[in-house]
Amino acid sequence: MGVLKMAKNTNIRISLPAVCFVWQIAMIILFGVFIRYDEESDTHWIEHRRKKNISTNLENDFYYRYPSFQDVHVMIFVGFGFLMTFLKRYSFGGVGFNFLIAAFGIQWALLMQGWFHHLDENDWKIKIGVENLINADFCVASCLIAYGACLGKVSPVQLMVLTLFGVTLFAVEEYIILELLHAKDAGGSMVIHTFGAYYGLTISWVLYRPLLSQSRHLQGSVYHSDVFAMIGTLFLWMYWPSFNSAIADHGDGQHRAVINTYLALASSVLTTFAISSISQNNGKLDMVHIQNATLAGGVAMGTASEFMITPYGSLIVGFCSGIVSTFGYLFLTVNKALLINLLITLYLFPYQPFMEKTLKIQDTCGIHNLHAMPGVIGGIVGAITAASASESVYGQEGLINTFDFKDAVANRTVNIQGGYQAAGLFVAIAFGLVGGALVGGILKLPIWGDPADANCFDDDVYWEVPEDEDENFLSRHQNMNHARGIPDV
Amino acid sequence: MGVLKMAKNTNIRISLPAVCFVWQIAMIILFGVFIRYDEESDTHWIEHRRKKNISTNLENDFYYRYPSFQDVHVMIFVGFGFLMTFLKRYSFGGVGFNFLIAAFGIQWALLMQGWFHHLDENDWKIKIGVENLINADFCVASCLIAYGACLGKVSPVQLMVLTLFGVTLFAVEEYIILELLHAKDAGGSMVIHTFGAYYGLTISWVLYRPLLSQSRHLQGSVYHSDVFAMIGTLFLWMYWPSFNSAIADHGDGQHRAVINTYLALASSVLTTFAISSISQNNGKLDMVHIQNATLAGGVAMGTASEFMITPYGSLIVGFCSGIVSTFGYLFLTVNKALLINLLITLYLFPYQPFMEKTLKIQDTCGIHNLHAMPGVIGGIVGAITAASASESVYGQEGLINTFDFKDAVANRTVNIQGGYQAAGLFVAIAFGLVGGALVGGILKLPIWGDPADANCFDDDVYWEVPEDEDENFLSRHQNMNHARGIPDV
Amino acid sequence: MGVLKMAKNTNIRISLPAVCFVWQIAMIILFGVFIRYDEESDTHWIEHRRKKNISTNLENDFYYRYPSFQDVHVMIFVGFGFLMTFLKRYSFGGVGFNFLIAAFGIQWALLMQGWFHHLDENDWKIKIGVENLINADFCVASCLIAYGACLGKVSPVQLMVLTLFGVTLFAVEEYIILELLHAKDAGGSMVIHTFGAYYGLTISWVLYRPLLSQSRHLQGSVYHSDVFAMIGTLFLWMYWPSFNSAIADHGDGQHRAVINTYLALASSVLTTFAISSISQNNGKLDMVHIQNATLAGGVAMGTASEFMITPYGSLIVGFCSGIVSTFGYLFLTVNKALLINLLITLYLFPYQPFMEKTLKIQDTCGIHNLHAMPGVIGGIVGAITAASASESVYGQEGLINTFDFKDAVANRTVNIQGGYQAAGLFVAIAFGLVGGALVGGILKLPIWGDPADANCFDDDVYWEVPEDEDENFLSRHQNMNHARGIPDV
Repeated sequence: MGVLKMAKNTNIRISLPAVCFVWQIAMIILFGVFIRYDEESDTHWIEHRRKKNISTNLENDFYYRYPSFQDVHVMIFVGFGFLMTFLKRYSFGGVGFNFLIAAFGIQWALLMQGWFHHLDENDWKIKIGVENLINADFCVASCLIAYGACLGKVSPVQLMVLTLFGVTLFAVEEYIILELLHAKDAGGSMVIHTFGAYYGLTISWVLYRPLLSQSRHLQGSVYHSDVFAMIGTLFLWMYWPSFNSAIADHGDGQHRAVINTYLALASSVLTTFAISSISQNNGKLDMVHIQNATLAGGVAMGTASEFMITPYGSLIVGFCSGIVSTFGYLFLTVNKALLINLLITLYLFPYQPFMEKTLKIQDTCGIHNLHAMPGVIGGIVGAITAASASESVYGQEGLINTFDFKDAVANRTVNIQGGYQAAGLFVAIAFGLVGGALVGGILKLPIWGDPADANCFDDDVYWEVPEDEDENFLSRHQNMNHARGIPDV
Repeated sequence: MGVLKMAKNTNIRISLPAVCFVWQIAMIILFGVFIRYDEESDTHWIEHRRKKNISTNLENDFYYRYPSFQDVHVMIFVGFGFLMTFLKRYSFGGVGFNFLIAAFGIQWALLMQGWFHHLDENDWKIKIGVENLINADFCVASCLIAYGACLGKVSPVQLMVLTLFGVTLFAVEEYIILELLHAKDAGGSMVIHTFGAYYGLTISWVLYRPLLSQSRHLQGSVYHSDVFAMIGTLFLWMYWPSFNSAIADHGDGQHRAVINTYLALASSVLTTFAISSISQNNGKLDMVHIQNATLAGGVAMGTASEFMITPYGSLIVGFCSGIVSTFGYLFLTVNKALLINLLITLYLFPYQPFMEKTLKIQDTCGIHNLHAMPGVIGGIVGAITAASASESVYGQEGLINTFDFKDAVANRTVNIQGGYQAAGLFVAIAFGLVGGALVGGILKLPIWGDPADANCFDDDVYWEVPEDEDENFLSRHQNMNHARGIPDV
Repeated sequence: MGVLKMAKNTNIRISLPAVCFVWQIAMIILFGVFIRYDEESDTHWIEHRRKKNISTNLENDFYYRYPSFQDVHVMIFVGFGFLMTFLKRYSFGGVGFNFLIAAFGIQWALLMQGWFHHLDENDWKIKIGVENLINADFCVASCLIAYGACLGKVSPVQLMVLTLFGVTLFAVEEYIILELLHAKDAGGSMVIHTFGAYYGLTISWVLYRPLLSQSRHLQGSVYHSDVFAMIGTLFLWMYWPSFNSAIADHGDGQHRAVINTYLALASSVLTTFAISSISQNNGKLDMVHIQNATLAGGVAMGTASEFMITPYGSLIVGFCSGIVSTFGYLFLTVNKALLINLLITLYLFPYQPFMEKTLKIQDTCGIHNLHAMPGVIGGIVGAITAASASESVYGQEGLINTFDFKDAVANRTVNIQGGYQAAGLFVAIAFGLVGGALVGGILKLPIWGDPADANCFDDDVYWEVPEDEDENFLSRHQNMNHARGIPDV
């Protein structure tokens, strides 16, 4: 049986190029039909300025948002990419497949989000500018989170499929939460993190591998792969204030979102170190916690980042989410050292003992601890903060601006807003669970070239891997070259 | 005796979590009492704009300073963090503890700097915006510099104490230098680098370990740890123009600070390579020099960055500081290859032979060469440049703007300003020496869990360290798995 | 013979310091004579503002360009630097010499570009601001591209000479292309990439080493050196939109350049993965392709980035350039696994079989595939896009603004502009070929300390290299310390 399993066909020489080519050509055609420059990136901008009496080029949204966009872009490609290099022999796959699916996903997201949010009803075109680029990066983030649960266990073709459907689902749930429910979620605690995490966890649950322990020897880090992962952690951590403020309101909105996120992140670092140390007999710190749970404050501050949550409120959010996230890595993970998460969703389901026996989810990066739980916290914090907003704190205009209480929702009260925020959280979870189940089912088909249980977490399956340290060692002892067939001159 | 030493208790399971929790809770309480959003990050900004007749959201200081803030943030966490990953087995501690103390320090700095500089006398609140975040990052930089001298020889609890007092001392000396003496120091040659370096060197002197050679085998780099350190070096080098301009005057002030720093840094790269090569018999370059002394131009340009020092003046500053810094690594370091600096402070004390025999400072990262000497150069350059400023060069308004000659100091002449600049330098040194002696004394108490001499520079003391290359090698030869107790399937 | 070769003198203890010192002193003198702050970085800015009736400090060009400048700066030092760390034992040289020559080159570029473009005819001074810094970084990029062809085979002294002449040639060809021909090239497909690549390839051709296979064992990567190289790839990829927009027109010009580049890059990622996978029997991906060809879209979008090429046009450019670049790595490279490119320039010369036998170019990084071919594509795309521009798409004012049809070229038509764009491409190629031949001849002199064939790609020639993994392994088994002469305590 084991031998048969080993024989799984992982040759993606037809399927991966086919998917890349066909989908990219489809993108070109759809962009040709639908996507145009918006008025701020079109050469007619100078006429637009004159017509709207805009005094300076600086009022082009580009100058408000471009620095934040670049920070978000770094988080998507270096942040998420390097965070997933921690495995000893899956660094190529971590950073490389992250690169592939993000590059595809941002194109598809421009279309999907455009159709739902930005379709010009006059000419049926989507007009894009820098804010669309940011939103496309945001959308892709949810798929990269989902990748975290599947890291090392799926083929790049499966990841492309995961991204295709993930972006599609994202655009719909985002439309429901932000447009129909009119919930606020500037940094995406619900829309990005909660959805992305449950989407990935459910997929991982469908793709459960009972014999995954066959690749146990590859399910850990080595010293330098942990240092590489810290590059990802730190770029995520440093730029998270840009993430949560990138599409916030001009002026005080962006400014306040940065302050709140900066403080929440700082606070979650301290509680992560505390819980990590206290959990070991000898007080030693665990890199897994430091690489992940320190970021929980940013996730949990996603929804409320624009609100007047106060600086100390932000610290409290970071404090709690750092604790919860680290505890997640400690207690929801049966075999922590090997990073196989047999995850028991303690707080969502009433029949815990039943779940404990039944629900088997292999969550390679622990996204339940970093994105699902802090994301849900963020959604709840957002709902409470919204419901307790008041004119005395926000000012009359400030309250209207912050929650966009105008047009159809001009008469909404903060209490009702709080309710809609909570509803948004459930929509995000529902889309993650249902969407993940459906997509998981598709990915279970035996046509995608996924690796056998014994070959998981091994770059050698999909990459030309250079010979390594031992080779290296030899190369420095050139007197041994004869044995390797290299002629002297 | 040796065996007894080895038995030193490095279990920080109680102390580290206690410090993290208690101090973080203290931060939350103090933030609750004291910290509020300022008028630019508060929802009342729209009313403020109307009242002050501000035409556009872009005039929110956020848009002037946020890109620089993010660059500084990267320097603090990736720059300093990765610069300290060069040791072969202390990369976790280098980047990880840097992360911890910076995350704590920025919170404490917002409070300390707020009390001294930004306390609103009407309501006794500190109103924070993006400039406060930058200043908090700056303040923490001085403690990270001090960490460089102690790298590998102290426990994380000691580092938290070092940071608590370091930030406190910083806020006081900064208040004296910038407010009372009205010295200018936009990039902190004196306030940050000189203070931070002498603070760390004095602590290291108090904590002198006569038997440190017991961990000699860990006091070097390996090939890839040197490459990791270059990540730190380059992000510091590239973003230093943002560091020196982040809180400079809007408009020409920030612009000029960038140009001056850019040029000084370029110049110090060339002299560093020159001295590094000339110092070896075979002309080979030393990574220690390239990783550190190339940055000396940025340190030395800290005070004068805003001044009309001229582009060629900036090149000269970089030229000299690169030479001095590299010579520091060569001659003030007895055992360079092993990175134990037995530092002889040649230029501060008259009785050199006496110092040579007596003053024993183990400076792991060579901060004396990178921060102390170039910082002092920067202070002197600032004083000279200020004293030689003239209306013919600066213009009447330019001179007033650059040196803030208004209110209480409206009648100050440039000569007097030069004198106050020099006085500021001595204040920074004094605070470093006295503060370091006091804090060093506290850190010498045998309660902080510091490692034994033989266990210095070893991540294994405070971290769960993965098994490594050898393990890795084995893992790729799965036929050997039987021997490791992993069952075949 | 081999033994004689081995005896090549690589001692640069005199030559490297001499070059660094003398040239840096020359820079200081020339800067003293020629370089001054421009009106936006001078303290007289406040008077300038009043005179020109500029309402806010934000109109200082600093705020339009500084975020892009910092991104470009990261590309130059971390992007190019880390991209060249992929060799198993030349990471120090890759990132270190990149650092050295870029730091020298930006100074020399400020002078050379200043003399040609910015010399004030009143006082014969060059007035610099942030745009000059960006242009200096751009100029240096061409030399770093050329370094890519020579990586591992030249001494740092040769690289300094390559940079001195490279910057000089660049300034002249840039002047001819941008000023005399009035071609547009915001992102430098022609001026930077095409010139730089042919310059480097021709040098490499002149310096052809028939016995380079003697260092074959060092001409590959190890696992972690490939991960380091991905840092370079990703920072180049992420910040390329800033590269192509950094000196574009304020407002819609910068905005559009970002969108076009973002899309072209995304598209070339997918085609790179596709071709890489399809080219191997087992469908495995090759890190060499992912590290390089994914960037081809950015190179190819350099000239047309500001034009109304449309979003789908950008995708098509990325699509094609990703394919062409990856094919380059596959078929123009005889011994791919060993990274020795015996490059056959298929499309430039008619007598292909002749070329195939004769033209032997060893292109370490494959810059022909990443910069030369996509650069030429970019030039052609630019010419076609310019020639097909129309008032109906651009608007009357937009067309004039985009192509600067004013003053001497006020009456130029888009067709003629297209012709001049094409002419610009040939100028870039010609300067690369002729300049490279001349400089190659100079570098062939036996005085520069280049390594013997058997010692290429080895950091040990120019760097103090730490003992490594084996040492590391030993160090963790302290019971073996006795053998290494370290006393027990």
